[in-house]
Amino acid sequence: MPCNDISPPALLALDWGTSSLRAFLMSGGEVLETRQSAHGIQHLPVPGVPGFETAFAGIAGDWVAKWPGLPIVASGMVGSAQGWKEAPYVRCPADIQTLARQHVRVASGLGPDILIAPGVLFDEPDCLPDVMRGEEIQIAGALLNHPEWTARACMVLPGTHSKWAYIENGKLVRYATYLTGELFAVLTQHSILGRLLPAERKTDPDPAAFALGLATAKRSKPGDLSHQIFGTRTLGLSGRLPHASLADYLSGLLIGHELISGMAEAGNLSAMPLVMIGAPALCQRYTDALEAFGRRPDAMLDNTAAVGLWDFALAAGLIK
Amino acid sequence: MPCNDISPPALLALDWGTSSLRAFLMSGGEVLETRQSAHGIQHLPVPGVPGFETAFAGIAGDWVAKWPGLPIVASGMVGSAQGWKEAPYVRCPADIQTLARQHVRVASGLGPDILIAPGVLFDEPDCLPDVMRGEEIQIAGALLNHPEWTARACMVLPGTHSKWAYIENGKLVRYATYLTGELFAVLTQHSILGRLLPAERKTDPDPAAFALGLATAKRSKPGDLSHQIFGTRTLGLSGRLPHASLADYLSGLLIGHELISGMAEAGNLSAMPLVMIGAPALCQRYTDALEAFGRRPDAMLDNTAAVGLWDFALAAGLIK
Repeated sequence: MPCNDISPPALLALDWGTSSLRAFLMSGGEVLETRQSAHGIQHLPVPGVPGFETAFAGIAGDWVAKWPGLPIVASGMVGSAQGWKEAPYVRCPADIQTLARQHVRVASGLGPDILIAPGVLFDEPDCLPDVMRGEEIQIAGALLNHPEWTARACMVLPGTHSKWAYIENGKLVRYATYLTGELFAVLTQHSILGRLLPAERKTDPDPAAFALGLATAKRSKPGDLSHQIFGTRTLGLSGRLPHASLADYLSGLLIGHELISGMAEAGNLSAMPLVMIGAPALCQRYTDALEAFGRRPDAMLDNTAAVGLWDFALAAGLIK
Repeated sequence: MPCNDISPPALLALDWGTSSLRAFLMSGGEVLETRQSAHGIQHLPVPGVPGFETAFAGIAGDWVAKWPGLPIVASGMVGSAQGWKEAPYVRCPADIQTLARQHVRVASGLGPDILIAPGVLFDEPDCLPDVMRGEEIQIAGALLNHPEWTARACMVLPGTHSKWAYIENGKLVRYATYLTGELFAVLTQHSILGRLLPAERKTDPDPAAFALGLATAKRSKPGDLSHQIFGTRTLGLSGRLPHASLADYLSGLLIGHELISGMAEAGNLSAMPLVMIGAPALCQRYTDALEAFGRRPDAMLDNTAAVGLWDFALAAGLIK
């Protein structure tokens, strides 16, 4: 999407996570141009502030030179304690106004400052505390484009650290993180389970092995997971599953556990829209699993960070 | 314990696992001398058969030279597909006679052959299959010294891959593996949780953090574990626990999950002896956790591999 000079950009938006950086040139809530770099906050060209400045100049320096007055916003781990500048967490309940009020400002090194969005802390008695950075902006983006979900919704953002987030009256009221994606990664890469797995995960998943993982999760009693994880090895050793299908069993098992817990925490999930937000292939995997558990999501959205950042800039008064 | 030449040894026994090799010189069921090396089957001096021969000669070559007729037995991963020679699994129900009948024999490279004990496979319909190699010999050792447990007992062998094993009428009838120790290791060493943990785990554990992990496990619904694991991070970020105590929370959480599932699977655990077998510090940690869950183990035994190997040699007719 090369930038169309007839429609001048109104915002430069950065979705800056742990492992990647994406930059959006936007106008009227629409993305004119997208760029991506591998310079997540853990993979900067050099450490510290110079690394952030270099990464920013690399991905968007020519945009800033061309439109020097363009407002700039950012969300994600860039606002963490390990980020460019820490944007302290706001607490639930939170909406885009809350986030905008508690932005922090950092010099971009190229002229205009960057407004960084804070993350959100959930910290209530008798619950484990929880944190998010970046997903709150994706949630805002989903709500901006779908005001019908403002009254009440459950939004699931699957990934390394999956989030189950609850919207009530336009506010993010509570959420829970599941370590599903990271658990899959460390178990397949660093545990004994990896020894039976083929070096390259095959591209055509085995639906029966995935379904076996889901079914195993479904009949779980509390505490069963670490035994069932070991099943990834024993299903292979005993010949019940081909080695090439073991990762699909583990994926189904871990996603299944997340769904069982998430659906139970959600309470009456039939009384609210259920929305999946994230990479289409992963959302599809979760949707297949949800359907096996008797619920069809009401919508699947690809990453909504850009439009959420647009909403953040609106709420911060940077654009109209 | 230098070998006493007045009491000549009757057996050379090897407990040969993934990460270590232990050799016992034995007489009358008692250990005369113990040696240990780091040459577990994944850490041989050179790969393959020459590596096994070299490791064996290194730890016990002088014993074999001194007593060339000494029978030699081995248990553990040395009999796996990645071991010196594969000893195919026997199936539950199994006892020491079953194990002895299905030994395999390998040339030691120094004269006498080594008899390797098989592992045990549990593979019943409607259950995940399960495997053990080495624990079956420890269980035999516990039973040889405690015939009062032969009729019925639950034996817990905590560790990297914890086992909950059930004895009925002298036979190992079923068991389940929990990946507890390995899960703790990969999460602290390879996941985001490690970022908040001090580089060196402190030697004085925090009992309150361990108890919080246990209490969190205790109130689990199915599927909650991966959210509770993420709590290791959020309890630190939110300031509820000092970073130095987070590993104790995770340890309590993972052990707690194992206990909840294991105790539920055990059924009427008050109707049978509950025996812990393994490293004393780890057994004590499990015992503390069990007591918090309302059950006191009836006994704690240090590793019983040596006496189990003695029993294996008896059953194989190598000694009387």
